[in-house]
Amino acid sequence: MTVKLYFAPGACSFVPHTLLETIGEPFEPVMVKLHKNEQKSPEYLAINPHGQVPVLVDGGATITQILAIVGYLDAKHPQLGFLPKEPLARAKAIETLAWMNNTVHPTFTHVFMPFKYSDKPEVQAELKAYNAQLYRPMLAEIEAMAKSMNSQGREFLGGAQFGPMDAYALTLLRWGGFAGIDPASFPALWAHVQKVAQLPAVARAIERERLQLNVYKPA
Amino acid sequence: MTVKLYFAPGACSFVPHTLLETIGEPFEPVMVKLHKNEQKSPEYLAINPHGQVPVLVDGGATITQILAIVGYLDAKHPQLGFLPKEPLARAKAIETLAWMNNTVHPTFTHVFMPFKYSDKPEVQAELKAYNAQLYRPMLAEIEAMAKSMNSQGREFLGGAQFGPMDAYALTLLRWGGFAGIDPASFPALWAHVQKVAQLPAVARAIERERLQLNVYKPA
Ligand SMILES: N[C@@H](CCC(=O)N[C@@H](CS)C(=O)NCC(=O)O)C(=O)O
Ligand SMILES: N[C@@H](CCC(=O)N[C@@H](CS)C(=O)NCC(=O)O)C(=O)O
Repeated sequence: MTVKLYFAPGACSFVPHTLLETIGEPFEPVMVKLHKNEQKSPEYLAINPHGQVPVLVDGGATITQILAIVGYLDAKHPQLGFLPKEPLARAKAIETLAWMNNTVHPTFTHVFMPFKYSDKPEVQAELKAYNAQLYRPMLAEIEAMAKSMNSQGREFLGGAQFGPMDAYALTLLRWGGFAGIDPASFPALWAHVQKVAQLPAVARAIERERLQLNVYKPA
Repeated sequence: MTVKLYFAPGACSFVPHTLLETIGEPFEPVMVKLHKNEQKSPEYLAINPHGQVPVLVDGGATITQILAIVGYLDAKHPQLGFLPKEPLARAKAIETLAWMNNTVHPTFTHVFMPFKYSDKPEVQAELKAYNAQLYRPMLAEIEAMAKSMNSQGREFLGGAQFGPMDAYALTLLRWGGFAGIDPASFPALWAHVQKVAQLPAVARAIERERLQLNVYKPA
């Protein structure tokens, strides 16, 4: 039975999407249209009661949460080095991924989907503006990671091989454009993201999702 | 060199705190007083630039993020079964822990520290009220986990051994009291939390943090 990935174009499901393309075995990508609220349909809620992408289905198993899916794909394909094997290096990789996932990503959600945190339009407008300001220094932290990658002569954020940190960094920097942040203001990260986007596996995911890498529009 | 844990009484650092007590080797607990803003002191920011607990220091290594610390302690002490070994069971455990960490926990942060998301007092008041309402159904999901644990005859949320899910569940249910939620309204979870609190290792962490398990005050 082939693996299924429920994804939405441009969403955080891009992270497992690129890993599956890197693995290179056939999988079934299932598109969920968030703008049509398909993730809240009874059919989809039966798959993921939280009504979100990504969802990985492998045989009888259904796995949600980026961190769980990444760990699972790493365990199935250890030779691809998605995560380091040595316990401390692995912990440091999970530290960064967890921070992207529980801090940077939700900060953007306050900008993009403020209605998740309040039903009052005026509160939503405040959340949007305030959290867009918080988002910029977070991208600056990822820029610092890209710089130390360069100065240490590493090819990718997590080490010598492409992995979830690179895909998440691409997604988060791309989202910045929607929050009025020019990706070019983070030159090391932007160069890295553009390089990563050209890896054949990543390029296939970008093509399937029809993503434009730079969505920033100067005011 | 002994392991050091930076923790704050009642905070999410309770999760690694209980794991270290379960491991049973000497460690140095370092208390950080959040109400005195010690986490924002230059000394502490040199340890964790994000100004948060928990931080685990092991020799020259500094690890932040609950998920990273849990994985690291599990790798060092595999016999304690903090996380399942089989890849799918492990992924399902990480799925729940990641959800607690990136969804339930931040929802409570909107109630307890709304100033993290807005500098306007009126917006903060709205966030507090709205997110307290979101928090209750999340605890109901953990109640459902406690019920299926009972019906499957398991001792703990993650399986046969005490682990991070039990400690996180205790913390999240306890926090509910501060959000006006009576723990007794989730009877299976509340019974489980009270049982877990009596494990000698957990009881030692509770004593060091001087925690009252039920902080709910009827209106
Ligand atoms: N904590 C989840 C977050 C998933 C998430 O935020 N998914 C978003 C897209 S980036 C989504 O499906 N949003 C639609 C919605 O919430 O209605 C994970 O790590 O997988
Ligand atoms: N994502 C972090 C969250 C840590 C966190 O939220 N820590 C809180 C206590 S529960 C804290 O230190 N808050 C103080 C502050 O942010 O000023 C983790 O998983 O470790």
